[in-house]
Amino acid sequence: MRLHNFHLSSTSFRVRIALALKGLDYEYVAVKLAWKDGDHDRPEYRAFNPQANVPVLEDGDARLTQSLAIFEYLEEKYPEPPILPRDPIGRARVRSLALFVACEIQPLNNLRAERFLAASMGADKDALRRWRRHWIQTGFDVIERSLASDPATGTFCHGETPTIADCCLVPQIANALRPAAGLELAPWPTIARIHRACLELPAFQAALPQNQPDHARVDGARRE
Amino acid sequence: MRLHNFHLSSTSFRVRIALALKGLDYEYVAVKLAWKDGDHDRPEYRAFNPQANVPVLEDGDARLTQSLAIFEYLEEKYPEPPILPRDPIGRARVRSLALFVACEIQPLNNLRAERFLAASMGADKDALRRWRRHWIQTGFDVIERSLASDPATGTFCHGETPTIADCCLVPQIANALRPAAGLELAPWPTIARIHRACLELPAFQAALPQNQPDHARVDGARRE
Repeated sequence: MRLHNFHLSSTSFRVRIALALKGLDYEYVAVKLAWKDGDHDRPEYRAFNPQANVPVLEDGDARLTQSLAIFEYLEEKYPEPPILPRDPIGRARVRSLALFVACEIQPLNNLRAERFLAASMGADKDALRRWRRHWIQTGFDVIERSLASDPATGTFCHGETPTIADCCLVPQIANALRPAAGLELAPWPTIARIHRACLELPAFQAALPQNQPDHARVDGARRE
Repeated sequence: MRLHNFHLSSTSFRVRIALALKGLDYEYVAVKLAWKDGDHDRPEYRAFNPQANVPVLEDGDARLTQSLAIFEYLEEKYPEPPILPRDPIGRARVRSLALFVACEIQPLNNLRAERFLAASMGADKDALRRWRRHWIQTGFDVIERSLASDPATGTFCHGETPTIADCCLVPQIANALRPAAGLELAPWPTIARIHRACLELPAFQAALPQNQPDHARVDGARRE
């Protein structure tokens, strides 16, 4: 298996967690995302992946895009340990939480959206920061309410083992905590508690941006 | 079954298609989305659905949110006729196409995003129109390239029967063609061809916004 990804990309981070939870080894191929001259903007990369995004997982002949499609593929092909509950209603709940992050927070905050806001609406650094914080804050309000009000929530988003909901939530939290958004988790105690539980697991630690080979080091120290 | 939805919501439209493809009957509960004073903004609705969005599908005890989670639930509980291919790579391809619409086009164009652009960045009608058209155009460029370059594309997005990729694509096309975006499909011939094939099917026709009970009629004529 080969994972084309970027250490700071939250969608890449999601898949790194899922692969680690399932104990699957892979070759790490770094694809640098950047405001200007990123690898994803190059014609060769676009020919390799028409969506021009990360992550891409290669597994034999399969070339898979979209992190949530990759989760489902992994669950079907490598079912143990599961990253979805077994019962239909639990599966639907977990998928809905994952999709809420994937459809209602992340797309509004990613590089692509912010680049176009700057180019087309003249959004400056402060406006982009407000934009970024708004979607995380309103999104986390929804997730907190959903998790805190539902007895299906356990140590993790759903019960006592991590699922794709946690695989999506933890990278979104990482984005929230980065200086570019500068948020703290205090307003969302359930999210904060689940975050701590996840970070105790080696699979989540292994997937952290700062533990990836494309995380640059300066003078022996990590840059971030 | 009971579907809480809005005729013009593209995520609602997706689920109406899937239900119709599977021949499942449901009670239609209209939830009016609006720039101001929409049903989705009311505290009662937020208590019913913490995500405060549509669609919500009730099936017995299950209260399901996020259209793509609803697709998976329907496929697991009501497998015939299938709306996903049987092979893992095909399933991953179809899910990726559906997710591309769901994560990389629709979230940037929905009411919520546009409301905040107007409020926080002073986006006027023209700026919102440019924004809306940009994400549909760049997104359709990707989908056209993905579909046209892949022999797995058939009469529909994947092979000879409709899948969740078509359930997502057709409502996104409806949004593109509405006056608010004012696009035509000429630049995307594969998308246009698949759109025509879908609209020949009764399931897609039954799900069209103009065929829903909350599509207002004025003087006996349909408003749109």
